Amino acid sequence: MTLPASTVLVFLDPAFENGRVADSSQPQLMATDLGATRGDGVFESLLAVEGRARKVQAHLNRLESSARALDLNIPEQDVWRRAIDTAITEFRDAFPAPSPAEDEVVVKLLVTRGVEGASTPTCWIQASPSPAGSRRQRETGIDVVLLDRGFDTEAGDRAPWLLLGAKTLSYAVNMAALRYAHKQGADDAIFTSTDGRVLEGPTSTVLLAHVETVDDGAGSARTVKRLITPQLDSGILPGTSQDALFAKAKAAGWELGYGPLVPEDLFDADAVWLISSIRLIAPVNHVDGREIGTPAMRKQLTAELNELFAGIE
Amino acid sequence: MTLPASTVLVFLDPAFENGRVADSSQPQLMATDLGATRGDGVFESLLAVEGRARKVQAHLNRLESSARALDLNIPEQDVWRRAIDTAITEFRDAFPAPSPAEDEVVVKLLVTRGVEGASTPTCWIQASPSPAGSRRQRETGIDVVLLDRGFDTEAGDRAPWLLLGAKTLSYAVNMAALRYAHKQGADDAIFTSTDGRVLEGPTSTVLLAHVETVDDGAGSARTVKRLITPQLDSGILPGTSQDALFAKAKAAGWELGYGPLVPEDLFDADAVWLISSIRLIAPVNHVDGREIGTPAMRKQLTAELNELFAGIE
Repeated sequence: MTLPASTVLVFLDPAFENGRVADSSQPQLMATDLGATRGDGVFESLLAVEGRARKVQAHLNRLESSARALDLNIPEQDVWRRAIDTAITEFRDAFPAPSPAEDEVVVKLLVTRGVEGASTPTCWIQASPSPAGSRRQRETGIDVVLLDRGFDTEAGDRAPWLLLGAKTLSYAVNMAALRYAHKQGADDAIFTSTDGRVLEGPTSTVLLAHVETVDDGAGSARTVKRLITPQLDSGILPGTSQDALFAKAKAAGWELGYGPLVPEDLFDADAVWLISSIRLIAPVNHVDGREIGTPAMRKQLTAELNELFAGIE
Repeated sequence: MTLPASTVLVFLDPAFENGRVADSSQPQLMATDLGATRGDGVFESLLAVEGRARKVQAHLNRLESSARALDLNIPEQDVWRRAIDTAITEFRDAFPAPSPAEDEVVVKLLVTRGVEGASTPTCWIQASPSPAGSRRQRETGIDVVLLDRGFDTEAGDRAPWLLLGAKTLSYAVNMAALRYAHKQGADDAIFTSTDGRVLEGPTSTVLLAHVETVDDGAGSARTVKRLITPQLDSGILPGTSQDALFAKAKAAGWELGYGPLVPEDLFDADAVWLISSIRLIAPVNHVDGREIGTPAMRKQLTAELNELFAGIE
């Protein structure tokens, strides 16, 4: 058995106020846990930068919302907060970052329906290093392919048992889509609906930007920058990073828009990004082999968004 | 932590020719196993009756097919067979059945992509008692509701990354559909496609029967019995029990048919069943509150199918 490198585990346990630290080199889950046998549970991934967990409130809110969709009762947010703090502290003590710029910790919050026959969810925090590949893709950008998600944009409203707005542990399709994209020579995928809409990435939210120069009516030109994401009621996961970035962008004078978006909107954009809590803002260089905008425009707009995003707590 | 009642675990392990028996009262899975964190894996459930595992070849074939859809390399069938035998023997030694009629063991075969960062699947067998509720429903029958699966019948062919023909560990939607059905006062569900076809149950295959009396052309009447199931290329899981039963039914003079089926076909049938490897043949009394056939006809046809099914190896 290969040991996971540099992982800290903290289980939520009523007997331990700040969470129970567990040895990550040893088995810690029952083989009959319904997370392992049915993918029956929910999760969140967030990033701690220089010891500070980002967007904790948004992630805890979404975890609660996902749990509600699955009829799971989970511990209160303060319990999660204390366990998150424990995990980050333990991780940074055990594996100090060589420099502040590299001081990133991936923090996963996991909930399963618990052991078969019991009625108590299994809840834990996993802290691990941020993947080098993700950090690289923030710089180099990524190529993506469009993949059919099989659902229409009304399915989530019509059929709540499809759990479309919940971040469940049943991620086999998301992982299969990524493997399929890699086989096509791409780095990632963007899902589309059967009614032709742009949805989301398997582990990220889609953003696009348009930059226009308009006449201000008084004889001089003004630059209008617009940031657009697919509408939330199309059966996608509400993006915590997209939401936080939109707030910052609005304050900085960007116009904001919500879909519906079709693939042609991606090809027409000045820049497209996949945004998520760990890889953060990944500029999309090509969609299905077609270049998006120009390298200079992508670079400039990505730098602007990164600056806005750096201010997020 | 609640201990799972009467469970035997056998891990597939190259160091143990017949599988490695593990203590089911102790954690045996790494918390970073991608089965637990991503539902990334495949499984099978089969029944051992009086110590004899049923349809082992069909289940091992389907496990291989599911694993292939997920790009998982799994051990050879003989390795699985030996571990299955170990699990059944250990279980029956530890928990002897009070009578031959109760000598049923549920045998699950589980494969995950393994621990994060490793490249070796985690494979194990879980042996446990057959649920009393399932055995009861074979007798009493079940009420079901029709639930939209969100996909059309072409989605599986068009988008292999949706894994529609694979039995993956990502079963959160199947479990949510069952919870939804229970909240409606039903026992189970039948999924329908967005193009209006009958698909399958969350954990079972749909069967229906028509019984007709026809003139044989020579002045006397002949009874024609027809057994029908949805066509396999509609993105459903190929049912090992349906397949085995069809072979027996054909030999006994039944006519066989494959869909497309629409909900009206269920309402028009003389009997409908959900068939699966553990609960076996469960007659459907009502679909969306409408009675299927008559109690006498359901009972008679169910008895006939049970007799055919008893002969399955």
